[in-house]
Amino acid sequence: MTRTHPYEFGLDKNEANFVALSPLSFIERSASVYAGHIALIYGSRRQTWRDTYARCRRLASALVQRGVGVGDTVAVMLPNVPAMFEVHFGVPMTGAVLNTLNTRLDAETIAFMLQHGQAKVLLTDREFAGVIEKALVMVGDRRPFVIEVEDEDAPAGNSLGDVSYESFLSHGDPGFRWKLPSDEWDAIALNYTSGTTGNPKGVVTHHRGAYLNAVSNVVTWEMPRHPVYLWTLPMFHCNGWCFPWTLALQSGASVCLRKFEPGVVFDLIREHKVTHLCGAPIVYGMLINAPAEQRAGIGHAIKGLIAGSAPPAAIIEGCEQMGIAITHVYGLTEVYGPAAVCAQQVEWAALPVGERARLNARQGVAYPMQEAIAVLSPDTMEPVPADGETVGEIFFRGNLVMKGYLKNAQATQEAFAGGWFHTGDLAVTQSDGYVKIKDRSKDVIISGGENISSVEVEEVLYRHSAVLAAAVVAKPDEKWGEVAAAFVELREGATVTEAEIIAHCRAEMARFKVPKQVIFGVLPKTSTGKIQKFVLREQLHSAAAIV
Amino acid sequence: MTRTHPYEFGLDKNEANFVALSPLSFIERSASVYAGHIALIYGSRRQTWRDTYARCRRLASALVQRGVGVGDTVAVMLPNVPAMFEVHFGVPMTGAVLNTLNTRLDAETIAFMLQHGQAKVLLTDREFAGVIEKALVMVGDRRPFVIEVEDEDAPAGNSLGDVSYESFLSHGDPGFRWKLPSDEWDAIALNYTSGTTGNPKGVVTHHRGAYLNAVSNVVTWEMPRHPVYLWTLPMFHCNGWCFPWTLALQSGASVCLRKFEPGVVFDLIREHKVTHLCGAPIVYGMLINAPAEQRAGIGHAIKGLIAGSAPPAAIIEGCEQMGIAITHVYGLTEVYGPAAVCAQQVEWAALPVGERARLNARQGVAYPMQEAIAVLSPDTMEPVPADGETVGEIFFRGNLVMKGYLKNAQATQEAFAGGWFHTGDLAVTQSDGYVKIKDRSKDVIISGGENISSVEVEEVLYRHSAVLAAAVVAKPDEKWGEVAAAFVELREGATVTEAEIIAHCRAEMARFKVPKQVIFGVLPKTSTGKIQKFVLREQLHSAAAIV
Repeated sequence: MTRTHPYEFGLDKNEANFVALSPLSFIERSASVYAGHIALIYGSRRQTWRDTYARCRRLASALVQRGVGVGDTVAVMLPNVPAMFEVHFGVPMTGAVLNTLNTRLDAETIAFMLQHGQAKVLLTDREFAGVIEKALVMVGDRRPFVIEVEDEDAPAGNSLGDVSYESFLSHGDPGFRWKLPSDEWDAIALNYTSGTTGNPKGVVTHHRGAYLNAVSNVVTWEMPRHPVYLWTLPMFHCNGWCFPWTLALQSGASVCLRKFEPGVVFDLIREHKVTHLCGAPIVYGMLINAPAEQRAGIGHAIKGLIAGSAPPAAIIEGCEQMGIAITHVYGLTEVYGPAAVCAQQVEWAALPVGERARLNARQGVAYPMQEAIAVLSPDTMEPVPADGETVGEIFFRGNLVMKGYLKNAQATQEAFAGGWFHTGDLAVTQSDGYVKIKDRSKDVIISGGENISSVEVEEVLYRHSAVLAAAVVAKPDEKWGEVAAAFVELREGATVTEAEIIAHCRAEMARFKVPKQVIFGVLPKTSTGKIQKFVLREQLHSAAAIV
Repeated sequence: MTRTHPYEFGLDKNEANFVALSPLSFIERSASVYAGHIALIYGSRRQTWRDTYARCRRLASALVQRGVGVGDTVAVMLPNVPAMFEVHFGVPMTGAVLNTLNTRLDAETIAFMLQHGQAKVLLTDREFAGVIEKALVMVGDRRPFVIEVEDEDAPAGNSLGDVSYESFLSHGDPGFRWKLPSDEWDAIALNYTSGTTGNPKGVVTHHRGAYLNAVSNVVTWEMPRHPVYLWTLPMFHCNGWCFPWTLALQSGASVCLRKFEPGVVFDLIREHKVTHLCGAPIVYGMLINAPAEQRAGIGHAIKGLIAGSAPPAAIIEGCEQMGIAITHVYGLTEVYGPAAVCAQQVEWAALPVGERARLNARQGVAYPMQEAIAVLSPDTMEPVPADGETVGEIFFRGNLVMKGYLKNAQATQEAFAGGWFHTGDLAVTQSDGYVKIKDRSKDVIISGGENISSVEVEEVLYRHSAVLAAAVVAKPDEKWGEVAAAFVELREGATVTEAEIIAHCRAEMARFKVPKQVIFGVLPKTSTGKIQKFVLREQLHSAAAIV
């Protein structure tokens, strides 16, 4: 029986009391309240929020003139230049969906994405002309309209746009009256995840989630107004974890850069007094290991978000010494980038750095605007005990979870089975309720019936003074099924033998976990600094085949 | 013609990717992530977030056992004690609506609210036993179940509860499995506004808005985690402007107090290192005018939000000297309390304090999560020019606007006519886009066809060194229709004559605006420090009638 009550009547939504949540509202406000503040810095270019908003409206207007509208896809293949920032507003203003492409991908994969996402327009940069030209040939008849973003700092290359970005903007109206989406559940972005098998999956996110994650970034990071944010994180990666929208909310300045180089990064930090940056552990590792003279002369406080993989203790310690206060966040493309944070407890500040690093290396707790993160048994969907021992899978639930995978009902259904989003990452819950990854599911090594956490072995390897980066993968073994194999990249000038590394590991872990082989060399990494374990595995397998 | 597009299919809401926005999620997170942090301080009592959450769940559970559920009303008549904080969570956890009553009201008005709001349960405090007893007699048959919150610091008075709060909680389940609202548009609170004519109107707000205003408070105020918040603002006033929910988001500590007294306030600030507080100008005025020895010994930074009326320059200056950084916010019950902020521009910091105070006295711009504030011509609903001269009415639009007035379709319709919420306040838009109130509509004085802004006259009066508080109202006049009459409260020990005040005004404004009469005495104020002009008007009218 349902009762009626007085709050049911005459209290409906109307134009005065309800609007769709969208991060587009943030840029309108910054352009109005902080119009003269700098939004974008690139080389000698300085662009205010007033001008940035006008340019985004031009872009939207010009796209609409080309027939772009609700439900269309606009793809971009761009480095972290101002145009890459502008598309995060100009494209959704039309009702279209922004598809940022990973600039390190090959032509075949790009062609797949352009076709699968049905991109109507593509913005690109001369640097990627080779890949894009090939991809466009593969796309054939369904070739999108191509806009080339000109940049005098781009490496030499063919020009292949139907029009230049600036010329395209010049046809747009700076006073264009864009509209908020009619429904905040409407798609705002399409991001392909590079799975290890099969075709990439197209993660579709919505305006409501982009709005809430932008706010979550501010709350989590206690980010004040007018931050100076350095773009060490590619904007093609989960829309720069929603930071274009976060910066619009806080009227911050974006310091753009085409390419991550420690010397350049330190110059920009000094020149613009950068206050915030994001990146994978490798990004911070490169800063820590830069020559002392590059690092000199930075006197102000900097805050860094670290994600992509758990930060080794040495990274956290090194950042502290450099004056970068690190916060560790965790997520995936499917949850708008970070949707969990290793929330720092006040009392940790008094602990020795090693202990603090151990605590901060955990994946932690849900973001303020994510409803829940939980380690569940995938069979029963019941939480594992908070004993730090029982391994389960990490699940997310809440408003920071994607709409689903584009044109892939089966994968969507599997991802949401049981009313939670399945991350595929294996973890434990510790006694304080914090989640700690034991292994990405694919990386677990099963040796003689015992599970080996590759993360655990890697953490030990990182503690060796000669090791710059390390990755542990499963190597097929007749006797044990699998054994651990370690790939190690050494610090400049350091020398160490395989036997010494193995001895170091033996002193620190159970015998069965110790790598049976150590391979030295530069580790293959993604553009965001994640070590590509699948490449290492292939390397091992082909070596085994040759033997 | 509507086109179909790929984003329309297979990307629907489900349990994994959508939950209702509700500030109840914040307390669950604080109780989980910052369980051991202090949530409530009252006298010698210290209560963690873990315990506060458990008590709120007990309250919800016990209410449900008494039949309270979705769409029921639970009224509370309480000072700023811990229970008043707890009801902000425990009541909505049941799906019921929280109706906080203004504790300064008379029995007749309270009886009207209990009847109109159909309160099923009433929580009260011994201090208000006299009023409540009378009100309950008037309510008669529809008497709610009464819970008395016991407090040894309450003044002597009859006990009138059917049960004590602690005894009621003891029957509740601390692990009660409450649910988020099925729809974030569901009502969370009912707040009656004291209109000058007719019966009070019941403003109904929703979970979505309470969530977004709590977040807006954090963003606007750059509020860090774990603030120490002093309850100088009554929680019955727009749910303490949503700060119970804001503190749950930021896992802050609430320092409770029954009654505002400058000596006590300074003691609490020192003892708990209070970081944040809110109040009307009069609250800050009383702090500024407190004896120097009470103010001594405060070395840490404090931030204050000021609202209720535009802060006079002397208040802003005095606060600065005391070490309280003031932010001026503006709103009404209908927009969850503050929904506009006089956003401070970086360059203001370099201005002389008088100029800074003038800028900060403006109502400003929309809150980050309010869509718009605008000064429109009520006839055309077109914006007035940003000339600082043309007077229009202030309108709001966005997610921080009430659902409507309870059981009052006509008032609701009028409030939302034209797709905007009508505030009734008259204002101009200045050249920088900031809104500045010229007058609350009801306070405008029309003299010989010329409009006199009472705010303007008051500002001049405040500049006189003898004046502590001032209010200007219309006095009926045979010749001019109306003239301005000034009510003035003097600083302790100050003396001044009517003629001196009038001479001071003449030097500062057009002749027709100068008050024709000055009446000295203590000004009548609401519990939140707003000067009650209607009392002054009545005083004038009855004096005129006698003459």
